[in-house]
Amino acid sequence: MPKLIRMERARDKQKRPVMMAIAGDSAAGKTTLTKGLVKALGPERVTAICVDDYHRYDRQERKTLPFTALHPDCNYVEIMEQHLQLLAMGEPILKPVYDHDTGLLARPELVEPRDFVIVEGLLPLHTRISRACFDIAVYLGPPEEIRRKWKIARDTQKRGYQPEQVAAELERREPESAAYIRPQRAFADLVVRFAPIAGRDDPPNTPLSAELLLRPTIRHPGLSTILDSSERRSIHLKMSRDEDGRPCDALHVHGYAPIEESQVVQKAIWSRLGVDAELPDALGDLGTGQRSEPLGITQLLLLYHLLDAQRSGSHQAAAQ
Amino acid sequence: MPKLIRMERARDKQKRPVMMAIAGDSAAGKTTLTKGLVKALGPERVTAICVDDYHRYDRQERKTLPFTALHPDCNYVEIMEQHLQLLAMGEPILKPVYDHDTGLLARPELVEPRDFVIVEGLLPLHTRISRACFDIAVYLGPPEEIRRKWKIARDTQKRGYQPEQVAAELERREPESAAYIRPQRAFADLVVRFAPIAGRDDPPNTPLSAELLLRPTIRHPGLSTILDSSERRSIHLKMSRDEDGRPCDALHVHGYAPIEESQVVQKAIWSRLGVDAELPDALGDLGTGQRSEPLGITQLLLLYHLLDAQRSGSHQAAAQ
Repeated sequence: MPKLIRMERARDKQKRPVMMAIAGDSAAGKTTLTKGLVKALGPERVTAICVDDYHRYDRQERKTLPFTALHPDCNYVEIMEQHLQLLAMGEPILKPVYDHDTGLLARPELVEPRDFVIVEGLLPLHTRISRACFDIAVYLGPPEEIRRKWKIARDTQKRGYQPEQVAAELERREPESAAYIRPQRAFADLVVRFAPIAGRDDPPNTPLSAELLLRPTIRHPGLSTILDSSERRSIHLKMSRDEDGRPCDALHVHGYAPIEESQVVQKAIWSRLGVDAELPDALGDLGTGQRSEPLGITQLLLLYHLLDAQRSGSHQAAAQ
Repeated sequence: MPKLIRMERARDKQKRPVMMAIAGDSAAGKTTLTKGLVKALGPERVTAICVDDYHRYDRQERKTLPFTALHPDCNYVEIMEQHLQLLAMGEPILKPVYDHDTGLLARPELVEPRDFVIVEGLLPLHTRISRACFDIAVYLGPPEEIRRKWKIARDTQKRGYQPEQVAAELERREPESAAYIRPQRAFADLVVRFAPIAGRDDPPNTPLSAELLLRPTIRHPGLSTILDSSERRSIHLKMSRDEDGRPCDALHVHGYAPIEESQVVQKAIWSRLGVDAELPDALGDLGTGQRSEPLGITQLLLLYHLLDAQRSGSHQAAAQ
């Protein structure tokens, strides 16, 4: 009896979502970045998942293992690839769930892709197949001393660890960060770095500046006409050379950028989209009650790419 | 950036397994049937899963719902379809796990398809897509009074229920058994019914007889030359009409069949395969220390089909 095995639903019924990866090390700020995007688009249009749920072992089991949660062998990488492919084809998945509070693997949950799927985590860009699932790939890499501060703050406040425990864990993880997490930077269309500006003596509570590497692997909004490279402005665009020598744009948004100047740039980016909608006002929220123009402009740029991919339908054609 | 979304591994790397479904109501004997097959083939060659693991709600949650665990809405049917398709293509899955002891949904487990995948459960033949995944489809349907006895025995001995609770549950489930479980019988290549023979007064502990409907939807081993329809024999083959009037074969194996006669038939079936291997001796084990020739012959026939599908490679060609 000849029988037909095929991902049938994928072909006809489902619309393919726009897929964005936000990769980065633990406490790099992935969730804060994602939250603003979800809020700006509206949660009814976005599916946001974290691929750290694909941990293969629970916290207790990991204690006996020679590697940390960062290691690919500590994750169901093949299943992650499979689920990313399914989501990219518009298919639902039954996603595993890792509970950060208890350190246990819990019952899985049904995830159905909405118009936009944002996938954050430690290893979303680790393999060739996983990378092929994304329309936009982002790598978030603050300086290590900043990330260290963020990780200690979060893990002690929200996950019940002692500062020395977090410091020891960071040290234990460093070789695997170097081997598996940071190499993903090379595969990103946008590399985002929040950092203080060296040599400046800004007042306390000045937000961190953002430095965005805009690689020519996707089409960024043309900003050179509105942003010259003058150092006098708090937001500027510079031609730069990537690590491999290829030219790329580097967008700098200084932490002291006044909201008025930020608004001019945001409106310019937004108008490039040509959509008949208001500039979203949910951007730049640090989650601490504070606003950050560098964060806001970063989120707006990502939002631009999500909407541009949907508008152009390039993700549909590419997925045929 | 045009990106390629495709189930890549499926195409090249993996060998497709032979897929068999064993569908039937709760306590119809699916696990007993499956165990003998796994033992005969060797556990290293078989992946056996139960699709009742695709329950959407845990026991507590189900108490507030207007349907029972038998209802498709009480199961992740779309995910079951997806996972069956993946297994049929030789892909691993992260299978949900329902714990019958606690009634809870637990952490999922990685399942990698071996040469043979046996899928038992309440609803493996419920949808068109799920049915398309199988090379061999079996429906197990003992008379209701037998199944009732089995279910009460199992649920009180192994799952901690009181007999009245099981009886009430059976009654509550009956409309859904009629609506969703029993209709799967129509889609089976083999229908298996273990039952006592009406009007006979066999000694106690005589195993139940087996009545196997062999539908022409797959190619059964030619048995007509060795099994005539004489009523004097304890094992016989009869032309019969299916519910829809189409002709099919009905194989009867009486519970009192002597092991010598059973062996003759088993050897005949086995020789049809033309394999250079001994007839497996793990068949017919009732799990109670007793043997049953009707169970043994049923298992051997299923084993024949598993090996025949693998040998002929028909599942590979069909899955292209």
